[in-house]
Amino acid sequence: MSEAIDYNTLLTSEEFESRLRKIGETRYHNLHPFHKLLHGGKLNKGQVQAWALNRYYYQCSIPIKDSVVMSRMKDPELRRIWRKRIIDHDGESADTGGIERWYKLTDGLGLDRAYVESTDGILSTTRFAVDAYVNFVKQRSLLEAITSSLTELFAPGIHKERISGMLKNYDFINDDIMAYFKKRLTQAPDDAKYVLDYALENAKTRQEQEDVCNALIFKTQVLWSMLDALHFSYHEPGIIPPGAFVPKE
Amino acid sequence: MSEAIDYNTLLTSEEFESRLRKIGETRYHNLHPFHKLLHGGKLNKGQVQAWALNRYYYQCSIPIKDSVVMSRMKDPELRRIWRKRIIDHDGESADTGGIERWYKLTDGLGLDRAYVESTDGILSTTRFAVDAYVNFVKQRSLLEAITSSLTELFAPGIHKERISGMLKNYDFINDDIMAYFKKRLTQAPDDAKYVLDYALENAKTRQEQEDVCNALIFKTQVLWSMLDALHFSYHEPGIIPPGAFVPKE
Repeated sequence: MSEAIDYNTLLTSEEFESRLRKIGETRYHNLHPFHKLLHGGKLNKGQVQAWALNRYYYQCSIPIKDSVVMSRMKDPELRRIWRKRIIDHDGESADTGGIERWYKLTDGLGLDRAYVESTDGILSTTRFAVDAYVNFVKQRSLLEAITSSLTELFAPGIHKERISGMLKNYDFINDDIMAYFKKRLTQAPDDAKYVLDYALENAKTRQEQEDVCNALIFKTQVLWSMLDALHFSYHEPGIIPPGAFVPKE
Repeated sequence: MSEAIDYNTLLTSEEFESRLRKIGETRYHNLHPFHKLLHGGKLNKGQVQAWALNRYYYQCSIPIKDSVVMSRMKDPELRRIWRKRIIDHDGESADTGGIERWYKLTDGLGLDRAYVESTDGILSTTRFAVDAYVNFVKQRSLLEAITSSLTELFAPGIHKERISGMLKNYDFINDDIMAYFKKRLTQAPDDAKYVLDYALENAKTRQEQEDVCNALIFKTQVLWSMLDALHFSYHEPGIIPPGAFVPKE
């Protein structure tokens, strides 16, 4: 399918970064039609609920994923830097942090918090995709585990589009509800810059450069798979699997 | 969502078996619209190729899954019984066995064998769902690992429907191509009966009975998720993710 790779030829930093950015341009989930529907105001409240409910499973798994990554770091300096991510999501106390801000979204959409937290109603595909991410960082090299988060390079664009699109297009969305994404506008770029520099510095062989590219591709597949399932179950053709969340409205 | 379970009340064998059969009746993937399309002759050759290509990843992962299960069995008698499954799939030699019979299907459909074997073109959702199954049998109790295969109770019906439906409805399908499913008609019932008896005998608490039910539900979700993804990507709306197999016809 793809052309043969010459493992004796290292990519320059520019070539390597360009490869990574190209993966984002062609595979990041801002390209998925479900996001265009979501941001363009084409979904009803029940469909937006389904999205927020499923995406919650991703949100609550991220600090678990980052704990796994941190558990594999032998360097305290690296762990101190990575720790910020867990604090960002879990907060300094129970009422701060990214997961809590996600509840503002699900609360605002009228979803019961205990139901959201149970994850009982999520799509199996969501669970399998997110669990695949956690397993990936357990099983692959530390370089791949760290750099699978490079999708953050492309996050600010989608967050800006989401905030403005959803505020404009849905009467059930307001500033408070979108707190999660507004916060991520400042958090994600620092994290992404750090990981990009880490990749450029630590992928010292062509094999490692390819591993980093594949880790990023893998992560785009996790995000894409989640949207495929939402699109299929709640939009077109709209066939909800047995046991999954059924919107009331 | 579901009613509270009284963990002090053991189900009778009849109640327990009835619960398991009910899960099959309401969640097994014979109910999925993609199977109705497949068996009813409503797909074109490219769509049937996509199905066979993706399902190959399930087929080639099953003996890996069964090796994990076997690795957790302390009783040689149990391992001897379970070993049959691996032999069924891997064969006594390179040109026998279930995976080889699956290649007859993909060969017959005109897919390149090296491409099938590479699994490069499968949907990420297929990979995540199948890998979730392998991880399930690694991480859960041996009872759950064994009984997650209880979907085999419901397989003969779908295989009969598939053989007659596909032979009747597609001019590119013949008896040789369907060899895998014909063989499974005699293999699966023995395996399923053994596992059902194992469940009835070894789930000695209500918690264990519920665990078995949930293991079976989990397995139906694996199979269902795979069909959701095929249906979404290759039928309706028919949006193929970046990098996945694109049918030529």
